[in-house]
Amino acid sequence: MQDSKPGEDYVAGNGLLDRRLFLRAGVGASAGLLCAHAVGQEREPWTRHPGAPMADSGAPAKHTAHIKRLGISSQAGTTGTGVSRTPLEHLDGIITPSRLHFERHHSGIPDIDPARHRLYITGLVKRPLSFSLESLLRYPAVSRIQFLECSGNSGGMLAPEPRDASCGELHGLVSASEWGGVPLSVLLEEAGVSKNASWVVADGADAAMMSRSVPLRKIMDDAIVALYQNGEPLRPGNGYPMRLFLPGWEGNMCVKWLRNVQVTAAPAMTKDETSRYSDLADNGRATLFSYPMGVKSLITSPSPGLAMGPAGIYQVKGLAWSGSGRIRRVEVSADGGKSWADAALDDSVLPMNLTRFRSAWHWNGEPAVILSRATDEHGEVQPTREQVLAGRASNSFYHYNGIQAWAIDRQGWVRNVYA
Amino acid sequence: MQDSKPGEDYVAGNGLLDRRLFLRAGVGASAGLLCAHAVGQEREPWTRHPGAPMADSGAPAKHTAHIKRLGISSQAGTTGTGVSRTPLEHLDGIITPSRLHFERHHSGIPDIDPARHRLYITGLVKRPLSFSLESLLRYPAVSRIQFLECSGNSGGMLAPEPRDASCGELHGLVSASEWGGVPLSVLLEEAGVSKNASWVVADGADAAMMSRSVPLRKIMDDAIVALYQNGEPLRPGNGYPMRLFLPGWEGNMCVKWLRNVQVTAAPAMTKDETSRYSDLADNGRATLFSYPMGVKSLITSPSPGLAMGPAGIYQVKGLAWSGSGRIRRVEVSADGGKSWADAALDDSVLPMNLTRFRSAWHWNGEPAVILSRATDEHGEVQPTREQVLAGRASNSFYHYNGIQAWAIDRQGWVRNVYA
Repeated sequence: MQDSKPGEDYVAGNGLLDRRLFLRAGVGASAGLLCAHAVGQEREPWTRHPGAPMADSGAPAKHTAHIKRLGISSQAGTTGTGVSRTPLEHLDGIITPSRLHFERHHSGIPDIDPARHRLYITGLVKRPLSFSLESLLRYPAVSRIQFLECSGNSGGMLAPEPRDASCGELHGLVSASEWGGVPLSVLLEEAGVSKNASWVVADGADAAMMSRSVPLRKIMDDAIVALYQNGEPLRPGNGYPMRLFLPGWEGNMCVKWLRNVQVTAAPAMTKDETSRYSDLADNGRATLFSYPMGVKSLITSPSPGLAMGPAGIYQVKGLAWSGSGRIRRVEVSADGGKSWADAALDDSVLPMNLTRFRSAWHWNGEPAVILSRATDEHGEVQPTREQVLAGRASNSFYHYNGIQAWAIDRQGWVRNVYA
Repeated sequence: MQDSKPGEDYVAGNGLLDRRLFLRAGVGASAGLLCAHAVGQEREPWTRHPGAPMADSGAPAKHTAHIKRLGISSQAGTTGTGVSRTPLEHLDGIITPSRLHFERHHSGIPDIDPARHRLYITGLVKRPLSFSLESLLRYPAVSRIQFLECSGNSGGMLAPEPRDASCGELHGLVSASEWGGVPLSVLLEEAGVSKNASWVVADGADAAMMSRSVPLRKIMDDAIVALYQNGEPLRPGNGYPMRLFLPGWEGNMCVKWLRNVQVTAAPAMTKDETSRYSDLADNGRATLFSYPMGVKSLITSPSPGLAMGPAGIYQVKGLAWSGSGRIRRVEVSADGGKSWADAALDDSVLPMNLTRFRSAWHWNGEPAVILSRATDEHGEVQPTREQVLAGRASNSFYHYNGIQAWAIDRQGWVRNVYA
């Protein structure tokens, strides 16, 4: 790695380079991106004998065994009431492999017999109905690539002192998949929704019978009964054989192991929307039914646990998303927020999905604080931590979407800071 | 399932329904889509006790264990010189789970130590260079969702009599992933390409040292050194730690375990582009360097092995793709090609990627032949089998993209036919 100083390409303080570096070639050599060495070739041992055969189902490389779910924790006295997190710092692109999708269970993963499972449509309908998995496969379907985020994601950022944890440990309750299934509107049309209906109450077939009220308008707009994730049937940890999926809305409403959709005139005020998943303000009042996840971004690399090497040019990459639509812009700062430069966005900027952003940074080897800030297509700008906390009760931790700062020291170590 | 007759919604012969049925709700009930039953609810046993805990890495449901790679075969005397196929008939959407991505190996899967692997840039360059995996991670990267198809895919369709095989067994040498990595153009710019260069020769670190010549123009346009597949590092069967990826071009050119990129003035005429991967005509002449995969589509369901139930409404779904760009249109026929109706396309119609199409079909229980036909954004229309075969030598089987016909009998069994 050459430590050249391509000053003419800087676009923001402390070494941020023009994002065109990440859109097109041609400035690489002149900007001193050289990480390469000129050396001779020798033929490696693995080219000298035939390799392993094909397999029914492929597996990751043994060298990537450290890439697994993080921060698995369960409530005292239980094994399945808790979370596992996506290792964001080891991933790239906008898809989360299903094996690494985060999970949040309220009473573990039920072992459902798909032949016996039924989806019921009940309540304010002309014809109460039930659907088997097999029958749902005959219905009109759609598929879309969209994120899912737990409303409690990043809750650790409300701690008074910054936690010493990795990007995935702090923020790994967000993942993205291609979700495929039947629009719930089609099933409700078939059941015949009564005129006085305006909500549904969805509940799951786990032992917690997790249940949430959802406005009928969202259901008719874009809710699906998801049967497929990333091309294959849902996995048990994500709702096999079927789950509700509400694009952009908080994860707990996307009820897994979906069992019953009751059409109602009003929200049911279930335990899962009163004792939990409500937002307490510092005046003692709570906001219920705060659905869409806010505009948010994170730098996934560099991040804690991924130490920098020597001074030189680095890729700064991360993820941005908004529960209200597409990401329009992501800015990156390398000087603690004093100046900002636009990051490049990977090709597929899809509504209600993760968007991958990348910047080029010439790190001079001195301590630095790096941040990212997202703006969505409605002009909503990701708030600072201070702005998120303003007016909150001290024990309120849902819907945290503040700007994340990482501090880098002279040794190249990266840590979580409040900046 | 009601066997109603929504004649007013028919848009093509033998029961094809308007594609709007698959775009928006509202006609479900009137069109007799009822697959549902009105029954009472009982609380299932799996709701009565806590479920399983979280895991480091999630796994598919035990009930989906039949969804695995198909048609694994290896050349006599070898275990790793052959293919495994994607079970297209069991999948949905446009992403192939990495564990089910097809594989074609020329001498098995090498067990590469990523710390020792190097990518060399040699030949007509100012500075021959080598890159470690670690150094490549610091370079500007991109990610895109794109298909990969073996040029030999569907070669079985050239057999004189239709083979009795499933959709995946016949056509499963195509898959799609999000591929992430460094544009090869960036690395070549850094090495400094000489003025007289117009090709590169890429070779892999497997025991076959698979090697192909690629025009420099394609390399500078959109070739990447892929490091990530579907968000995580490549798996060994797909080139870990790095592979060449050439959007839309035949799979064998996307050299796995990429080891050397030699810049040249002319193609190298390697064994892999002369003895194989050339297209012999019936006049004895062979076409070399036929790169982009043609416009193509398949109905994945119904298809052989997925028997139909009773007469009634069914979803007809499938995949379409073109190596030259986006899919513009897919038509479906349920009367052996006499009449056609436009299918609905899922939201993400991406260039050089699989596109999911869906139609609604009212099957009357009588024998029927169903087909699909794709058109890409350049107006290229998928040819018939006859058109593909015209002028070919009898032993030429690469680049088969003919229209696929499935015949359905009164019992609902589906089989491959030439129609």
